[in-house]
Amino acid sequence: MLAELKGINEECGIFGIWGHDKAAELTYYGLHALQHRGQEGAGVVVSDGDKLKVHKDVGLVNDVFKDADFNRLSGQAAIGHVRYGTQGEGGSDNVQPLLFRSQNGSMALAHNGNIMNAYKLRGELEAEGSIFQTTSDTEVLAHLIRKNGRETNELSISEALQQVVGAYAYVILKEDKMYVALDPRGIRPLSIGRLGSAYVVASETCAFDLIGATFEREVLPGELITISDEGMEFTRFALREQRKMCAMEYVYLSRPDSNLNHVNVHASRKRMGMELAKEAAVEADCVIGVPDSSISSAIGYAEETGLPYEMGIIKNRYVGRTFIQPSQELREQGVKMKLSPVRGIVEGQRIVLIDDSIVRGTTSKRIVRMLKEAGAKEVHVRIASPSIENPCYYGIDMSTREELIAANNSLEEICEIIGADSIAYLSADGLERAIVKDKTIHQGICNACFTGKYPVTEEGRATISYVKC
Amino acid sequence: MLAELKGINEECGIFGIWGHDKAAELTYYGLHALQHRGQEGAGVVVSDGDKLKVHKDVGLVNDVFKDADFNRLSGQAAIGHVRYGTQGEGGSDNVQPLLFRSQNGSMALAHNGNIMNAYKLRGELEAEGSIFQTTSDTEVLAHLIRKNGRETNELSISEALQQVVGAYAYVILKEDKMYVALDPRGIRPLSIGRLGSAYVVASETCAFDLIGATFEREVLPGELITISDEGMEFTRFALREQRKMCAMEYVYLSRPDSNLNHVNVHASRKRMGMELAKEAAVEADCVIGVPDSSISSAIGYAEETGLPYEMGIIKNRYVGRTFIQPSQELREQGVKMKLSPVRGIVEGQRIVLIDDSIVRGTTSKRIVRMLKEAGAKEVHVRIASPSIENPCYYGIDMSTREELIAANNSLEEICEIIGADSIAYLSADGLERAIVKDKTIHQGICNACFTGKYPVTEEGRATISYVKC
Amino acid sequence: MLAELKGINEECGIFGIWGHDKAAELTYYGLHALQHRGQEGAGVVVSDGDKLKVHKDVGLVNDVFKDADFNRLSGQAAIGHVRYGTQGEGGSDNVQPLLFRSQNGSMALAHNGNIMNAYKLRGELEAEGSIFQTTSDTEVLAHLIRKNGRETNELSISEALQQVVGAYAYVILKEDKMYVALDPRGIRPLSIGRLGSAYVVASETCAFDLIGATFEREVLPGELITISDEGMEFTRFALREQRKMCAMEYVYLSRPDSNLNHVNVHASRKRMGMELAKEAAVEADCVIGVPDSSISSAIGYAEETGLPYEMGIIKNRYVGRTFIQPSQELREQGVKMKLSPVRGIVEGQRIVLIDDSIVRGTTSKRIVRMLKEAGAKEVHVRIASPSIENPCYYGIDMSTREELIAANNSLEEICEIIGADSIAYLSADGLERAIVKDKTIHQGICNACFTGKYPVTEEGRATISYVKC
Amino acid sequence: MLAELKGINEECGIFGIWGHDKAAELTYYGLHALQHRGQEGAGVVVSDGDKLKVHKDVGLVNDVFKDADFNRLSGQAAIGHVRYGTQGEGGSDNVQPLLFRSQNGSMALAHNGNIMNAYKLRGELEAEGSIFQTTSDTEVLAHLIRKNGRETNELSISEALQQVVGAYAYVILKEDKMYVALDPRGIRPLSIGRLGSAYVVASETCAFDLIGATFEREVLPGELITISDEGMEFTRFALREQRKMCAMEYVYLSRPDSNLNHVNVHASRKRMGMELAKEAAVEADCVIGVPDSSISSAIGYAEETGLPYEMGIIKNRYVGRTFIQPSQELREQGVKMKLSPVRGIVEGQRIVLIDDSIVRGTTSKRIVRMLKEAGAKEVHVRIASPSIENPCYYGIDMSTREELIAANNSLEEICEIIGADSIAYLSADGLERAIVKDKTIHQGICNACFTGKYPVTEEGRATISYVKC
Repeated sequence: MLAELKGINEECGIFGIWGHDKAAELTYYGLHALQHRGQEGAGVVVSDGDKLKVHKDVGLVNDVFKDADFNRLSGQAAIGHVRYGTQGEGGSDNVQPLLFRSQNGSMALAHNGNIMNAYKLRGELEAEGSIFQTTSDTEVLAHLIRKNGRETNELSISEALQQVVGAYAYVILKEDKMYVALDPRGIRPLSIGRLGSAYVVASETCAFDLIGATFEREVLPGELITISDEGMEFTRFALREQRKMCAMEYVYLSRPDSNLNHVNVHASRKRMGMELAKEAAVEADCVIGVPDSSISSAIGYAEETGLPYEMGIIKNRYVGRTFIQPSQELREQGVKMKLSPVRGIVEGQRIVLIDDSIVRGTTSKRIVRMLKEAGAKEVHVRIASPSIENPCYYGIDMSTREELIAANNSLEEICEIIGADSIAYLSADGLERAIVKDKTIHQGICNACFTGKYPVTEEGRATISYVKC
Repeated sequence: MLAELKGINEECGIFGIWGHDKAAELTYYGLHALQHRGQEGAGVVVSDGDKLKVHKDVGLVNDVFKDADFNRLSGQAAIGHVRYGTQGEGGSDNVQPLLFRSQNGSMALAHNGNIMNAYKLRGELEAEGSIFQTTSDTEVLAHLIRKNGRETNELSISEALQQVVGAYAYVILKEDKMYVALDPRGIRPLSIGRLGSAYVVASETCAFDLIGATFEREVLPGELITISDEGMEFTRFALREQRKMCAMEYVYLSRPDSNLNHVNVHASRKRMGMELAKEAAVEADCVIGVPDSSISSAIGYAEETGLPYEMGIIKNRYVGRTFIQPSQELREQGVKMKLSPVRGIVEGQRIVLIDDSIVRGTTSKRIVRMLKEAGAKEVHVRIASPSIENPCYYGIDMSTREELIAANNSLEEICEIIGADSIAYLSADGLERAIVKDKTIHQGICNACFTGKYPVTEEGRATISYVKC
Repeated sequence: MLAELKGINEECGIFGIWGHDKAAELTYYGLHALQHRGQEGAGVVVSDGDKLKVHKDVGLVNDVFKDADFNRLSGQAAIGHVRYGTQGEGGSDNVQPLLFRSQNGSMALAHNGNIMNAYKLRGELEAEGSIFQTTSDTEVLAHLIRKNGRETNELSISEALQQVVGAYAYVILKEDKMYVALDPRGIRPLSIGRLGSAYVVASETCAFDLIGATFEREVLPGELITISDEGMEFTRFALREQRKMCAMEYVYLSRPDSNLNHVNVHASRKRMGMELAKEAAVEADCVIGVPDSSISSAIGYAEETGLPYEMGIIKNRYVGRTFIQPSQELREQGVKMKLSPVRGIVEGQRIVLIDDSIVRGTTSKRIVRMLKEAGAKEVHVRIASPSIENPCYYGIDMSTREELIAANNSLEEICEIIGADSIAYLSADGLERAIVKDKTIHQGICNACFTGKYPVTEEGRATISYVKC
Repeated sequence: MLAELKGINEECGIFGIWGHDKAAELTYYGLHALQHRGQEGAGVVVSDGDKLKVHKDVGLVNDVFKDADFNRLSGQAAIGHVRYGTQGEGGSDNVQPLLFRSQNGSMALAHNGNIMNAYKLRGELEAEGSIFQTTSDTEVLAHLIRKNGRETNELSISEALQQVVGAYAYVILKEDKMYVALDPRGIRPLSIGRLGSAYVVASETCAFDLIGATFEREVLPGELITISDEGMEFTRFALREQRKMCAMEYVYLSRPDSNLNHVNVHASRKRMGMELAKEAAVEADCVIGVPDSSISSAIGYAEETGLPYEMGIIKNRYVGRTFIQPSQELREQGVKMKLSPVRGIVEGQRIVLIDDSIVRGTTSKRIVRMLKEAGAKEVHVRIASPSIENPCYYGIDMSTREELIAANNSLEEICEIIGADSIAYLSADGLERAIVKDKTIHQGICNACFTGKYPVTEEGRATISYVKC
């Protein structure tokens, strides 16, 4: 069963806006704010009330859109998507939103998450004559909605969603309506905001801050929201259950300036560092974080321990698509890629190295060696989340169990493999304390990758999909 | 009924190769040779025996493909497509080949032509739950083939083709087979060639010359050819009827170096000019052709009449996508776009101006005025084809009947509208004499746009499509 | 001495306009028309009356300029340049116009031609402390003008021009004046035109036709013209001598629609073909020209002999900078580059192949073989100019004497080397008859590369330059 | 006199390497590390022992270089430059290194700094006949070196440097030697490193870390180093004086991971924050730094005061050249550009806002307003350097005195203008304490922009230049 996973899950970012003259431009800025959730491709579909127009391509948001594109993309409603994923067989076909056209109207979909039973559903649809142009889960949902020639509306969408198992957030655009849906456990993040009289929806609240919108509320688990010129209508397609927001969104995926379930991500990371300091202090000279996602927890660790926080590793900002990769020969001679050590800081020091997580351990190993080669006397690795011992079925790309270093090695073995002087992980309780400040507001988190306790049923997992977001 | 046409028909070029290590590169060069058939988009799908890989985008062949793309496009079989068409709502989604993926194999299609009953077929498919991502006829054929979950094979393709009415040439690629099909009247051109042990198929033979392949034979009307590692297999999906190759392929669409039905296009154009000279001589000082497509007939006219052929109009080769269009102000001050007059040639001369055809008359009017402003004393327009009085339903973009100048004006009126000193068209008989050298080999031509005699039935025309190639 | 030539001479195109609000845009269109004279780099310098602004880069005119560039390039006077040349050590530094800035004003220069004593002059200047940033002759002239801190004016320019020996056409721009100069024998072409009240200058008249300007007159040999808001002033810096326009401008360099010394280039080429037919007829089935420059003479040959002109070789229009060159492997398998044969035309035919000239013979050899491989029965090569047996010191890139096939081989040997069935060149007298229609208007031509009779003195040649245009 | 400044001073970064097979590639990576010092243009000149080859253009390092460029740039020695500056009249001509070619060898120069008497020197040179193609100081130095036809060597370079007044760091490359020079007060940074047997020189040590080189020593004030295959030779062209490293290099210009005069920049910034906390504490809820350059001092301030450091402002990483700027309309509706506030952090909080410096005050005003609009209760601005009241003549772009907010307003007025609840600057003594840890090693800093005490003489300032780096 695990073999079916094939490391193809993916994070993505979605955005939607209804009721603004500059819908496509604002979607462009919103996707900018969500760029960290997917650098593989970007797209916008806009409705001018009469028809849907699409612009999308592989590449960063800035590469995909040129100023002049927005002349064509007039309209008061738009949805957008940024896509994460290695350049697979799908190529540009898989870039979202997907747009489906029929003689009585069009429909565009953008999706973040993973449908566990997509493979099975797709096989059934194909057996009945459906043909697919992408390898995306989103196309499965579209077929389910339009099956037997049904119209796209609350009813057909709800019934389609009831057939899919997994973790997902959707925005769907028609000429005259937008639909917003979140999975029954609320594993993936999705928020509603307002910009003047316009409605905005985004995977993270940082997209609201960038465009000057204000946060309204989170989309609820199992909720289907219909937005039109008449306003918002709220329906449910699933029974109310306790929310289980993905812990990894806090740990490394979301932007530090976003709030998820009323919890600021940077603040939660600082608390992870503080909890970690309480659980796993060590005698050292300074605290260093792996940029960018571990800076907050490193500052928390330093604050809690009183050790100085230092900038011992630098992330090269100019790494990008056009960057010329150093040849093997130059790498062996010491040319650094993404991260450079700061010799003047680390030389002769006993270092606490804070990282957000370890998946396969190869990056950690490289960073520890880099610091030692730059003169570090000791490197004590402290991980601001528990050890990942279980795969994610809900949309986070973290390899199969075979590749997870913590699933197959003891703490001592991991320490030796990565070459550290000591190692410690944050406990699952510590993580929960760091994230969940107020249980009444926040409900729960999904920490299945640490604990193996999956909030979505076994039955779903049994039909795990090879297709994706 | 005519209103349904909406000027959306289009020419395209298709190419396929089976059994060559460099299938994708050779398709690239083949598409280069066919570039004149479509500048809007280009794409290649290649099979490595195990899976299909696609690369396509809007733009010229050279813009769409970079050297490095071919590393990924390994495989021994490939099909390709160049697409003509104004940038419509479809955008890049409509670029071909279209690729459909299912759990038991993939299928790619490339198409040149027009399906007259596509609108009706699509409506029926949608009513049964099919969803469409493009506005292309090709997607209709794909649904017909895979309907009810059928496999893609000779049988399902034949039955699908029997449902479509129109003029078309298809190449279809699966992991282990290639299919080639031509409409029952053979209206669109399609030839088979050999390159060593590899099979090649292309809309025009000029693609064979560019890659060093040799012409084998024309695909026959109503023929379906299956190519695999076992060789070629020939079947028919329609009764044998007399071939009716589109006359406009000879008049202006194909490249002069191509042979269609064993007739060289340049040579046929020279004969059109000669026939025109016999039918419509005029006292003048020199003969000038509108570049590029009318040069051959102008030379023929000059040869027949003994008048000198002169280069009185120049086509600016550097016009292209990145060309900065002159502002209205500069155009009014005389800055020329695509064509420039040669003052030193035309000044004080009585000119026979040869053009291949007149559709709406606006270009002819502009050229006549340009020559007169450059000092021409007289401009006698001679058209190397009959007057176009009927729309084309078979894939040539020539507007509705309302816009056809010859459908709504007498010869005298046309002469006055375009500002010429005299005007004459080649007769339909003259055109036929110029094209058809040997009736036994060549069979017939479709000259419906001149004569109104459509080779494909009324019934077909009655359900004319709004969707396309 | 010949060793010093190193094949570095080059053609270029220059353009200038004074007194038009859209000076930079019009220069862009003018350079478009001159693009055939240089594809290596392009540039514009514009004066807004107060300061000079430059935009230039390697590449085609279309690649170098974007629409937005012209916002910055406001002004009523501009000069431009297109540069021919292999990508040498100079790189983009050598792209013209060169712009020199001093505290009391700027000066920009653009140049077409070759300064034979540039190497000697440069050595003298360097010995006195001048430093150079390019390997261009133009920088030498700039130093000569400004030597000892002199101002740029008629006097300093005249005295500088009197020191240089060679063939050249210059446009020089200051904030408030434009200077135009032609070498004492008028070897390079340069014409003056009018566009409303604006003055225009260009290497070829085709640039006037493109922008709607009218031809005024040729710049005279040894003339220096000063253009300002006061109008044009004519001075001479050299004694009047008979003009010796470069014959190769007619043979292949200029555009067929240009007039040089009142002689249309296409018409002169047709006459070359006719003279050639008179001198060297042969029994054959058809006449084929090598595109593009030999089409006119092929038509002339066909007209004179009564043989049909056929399109047996096609030039691929889509060859360009971004074109992916076929690998050696694919070339060996027959993939064609710039020229493709038309099998349907040449198969079994006895062909007269017209080419404009033969330099090293390698291209001719390749074309003859290509035609034979495509089935030609006989290929009779007819060259529409005399055999090139002497190098050019005046700006045409035609290799050293060692490489000139006709300088080292008899006619029979050339015929054998290139694999033709027969070969003949046009005589020098025939060429002169074809070009010079009216001796009173046209004066003479420089045919030194055919005859060895150089119009500029031995003394000049003795100090031949290694630097260039 | 101040009027002559015209805000044209500029920072730049320089790099050089001698004795490595991959000299050009390593220079590319070195320039990457120095990219923050100049985003306007980048260039490399490489020597293969026989000749110099150049590649440069406007744009970021990644935009200027493509992988294939390095095939041509073979050689064992190279120098490189990144250039800061608004797109001025110079355009790409001013991109460095400048390359000068003469018949007995070439010379390339790259420069960081400002020559105060460049205008006067240039006038004198022009009066003697020198002509200039750039507006760069570097060209002035080249003329001084080669004056009267002298060779480029230690002597001619030393004598040229003795004529220039200002702050500068130079690398000069000939076919067989490299020269490295620093101004007599050592105002600009420049370090020497080793990479195996190769010598490396760079404006900042972060370039060494990126390529795996080790720091050797600082270039001394007034030192001229000659590097060749024989090794390094050290000479001086000026008397030894106390070093006066530019304080702004520590405050905001250099990268935090660089060491300048053995002082780590991040660490010095943390100490600035700590000193500031001691001098200007305030009751508040959290400390926020303006990214990126003020993060270190904000952490220092937080550490010293015990207030939590929070991430209240986010810098959008995807801002770049191709970024589509929000229209005025969208900006007014709240779309953010470079910086976004984090509403969840700042809402209702009393904030200490740390910034590295204030020049004109417009940015500070915008940030304070942005925080207040995001709900901040109080914003207390704390500047981690003294108030800038004097212009810089040594290469830092900080406007004229008229524009310096602190030169024309009292502290209270500044506080009101920027809308803060309180404001305080670090004292000059505090800054010196933060930077200079060990006086014996570090010597002094130039803090003229704060104190008006210029380390280079009045006489020099009197002839201040309008030309630049």
